[in-house]
Amino acid sequence: MSVNTPTITLVGAGNVATHLAEALAAGGWRVNCVFSRTMLAAETLAARVGAKPVCRLEDVPPADVCLYSVKDDVLPSVAAVLCALQPEALHVHTSGTMPLSVFPPGVKNQGVLYPLQTFSKSVAVDFRKIPCYVEGNTLETEMRVSMLALKLSPLVRSLKSDDRRRLHLAAVFACNFVNRCYALAETVATQAGVPFEELLPLIDETAAKVHRLAPHEAQTGPAVRNDSRVIAAHRALMDHDAALSSVLEPLNSSSRDAYQQPD
Amino acid sequence: MSVNTPTITLVGAGNVATHLAEALAAGGWRVNCVFSRTMLAAETLAARVGAKPVCRLEDVPPADVCLYSVKDDVLPSVAAVLCALQPEALHVHTSGTMPLSVFPPGVKNQGVLYPLQTFSKSVAVDFRKIPCYVEGNTLETEMRVSMLALKLSPLVRSLKSDDRRRLHLAAVFACNFVNRCYALAETVATQAGVPFEELLPLIDETAAKVHRLAPHEAQTGPAVRNDSRVIAAHRALMDHDAALSSVLEPLNSSSRDAYQQPD
Repeated sequence: MSVNTPTITLVGAGNVATHLAEALAAGGWRVNCVFSRTMLAAETLAARVGAKPVCRLEDVPPADVCLYSVKDDVLPSVAAVLCALQPEALHVHTSGTMPLSVFPPGVKNQGVLYPLQTFSKSVAVDFRKIPCYVEGNTLETEMRVSMLALKLSPLVRSLKSDDRRRLHLAAVFACNFVNRCYALAETVATQAGVPFEELLPLIDETAAKVHRLAPHEAQTGPAVRNDSRVIAAHRALMDHDAALSSVLEPLNSSSRDAYQQPD
Repeated sequence: MSVNTPTITLVGAGNVATHLAEALAAGGWRVNCVFSRTMLAAETLAARVGAKPVCRLEDVPPADVCLYSVKDDVLPSVAAVLCALQPEALHVHTSGTMPLSVFPPGVKNQGVLYPLQTFSKSVAVDFRKIPCYVEGNTLETEMRVSMLALKLSPLVRSLKSDDRRRLHLAAVFACNFVNRCYALAETVATQAGVPFEELLPLIDETAAKVHRLAPHEAQTGPAVRNDSRVIAAHRALMDHDAALSSVLEPLNSSSRDAYQQPD
């Protein structure tokens, strides 16, 4: 562990790890090591931030912080090994859904830093606009995690594991399901001979609108107007396509029910 | 009908009519009249574009173009009356779902101008970024509708009624259902104690991403990874909330199925 610049080991080399490593390196942290079970992945990311690539946990050199951005299902086993190897380090995971208690009991300094954003390796993101949600096993640890988060973004908020899981579900609606709707829109537009690109102004305006209006106020469309003729026509268009109609019905009902006028 | 500046009557005074009237007036058309069954609505919009407000179709003065932006279910009856009163005018509706044949048979000049955007009265839109889809009963009429559309936007494309209806369904996915996902995200985030505003960077990035990647490539989240642990945890969070769980399941299945790896 260095006396001056704190060192950080990135455990994982996927989308989130890549963006975190680059943002932390830009923020003055020294990324001393990148671990991935796949040496090529470790090497690729390590080269971008001047770190040592390793593919065995036993080879991870000591660091002030071990930051885990691995798949949820491997996090418990990876964390168990590294927490035993580096009992003095601050161990922080970045999962929206795993609780703080995923770390073995007795680990001195354990925390969570959940950046609320969608990451693709090929698309740059500005971390300063990403809200980060932190948690720690003690007040002091949470302060340390907050200081780490503040290197990435000014938007840092304390959030307990249960609420973070709820927030993650909110993100699934706001991002994953929204993108799924984009994909279904592309399918239908293509059937009409219209390229997806021509939907982009509508997509942009739909996102821009909820900066100025609450989503409930911004809602438009046939379901909100309870326009059964249009809804039936849409249903008829999609009858042959199970992938589309299985989503169309519940979203229509959900939209309609939210705006149902009392009789 | 004027010899120089063509005149246009707006039939309707809702969101779409308001934005159309203002964009046309800015584009050099003379909006000579605004019709609405509600005199106050007609007056409000008419005052914004220096037109005559009327609430009886019989009082609509002659115009070169009658542009209909009324609810789909009243369009046939309103168009029948006005087409009989003004047989020489070009009659154009703006509905995504109503066919060209909504106009009575024998009307000389009938067309459609469908602007692909979501409109709220309180939110300004830049019409020059809105794709417009046009149709006409003859080539000459379609040319005239295209010329009208080109006053609004450089993005004008010919589209037949069947395909326009498909495109409208694509817009329902890209806008109405996306906004519904935003609303559900707000509900869940609020339960986590996180204000909706903190989801906006994620919402913006999700929209920005599909400018650079196809939606299918941009998809992330537990359903795509077929992460059954997270999906089950989300389901458990929402068990008590029928409005959320009725949408969660189909969207999870739809997302998962689209990325299913063959065994």
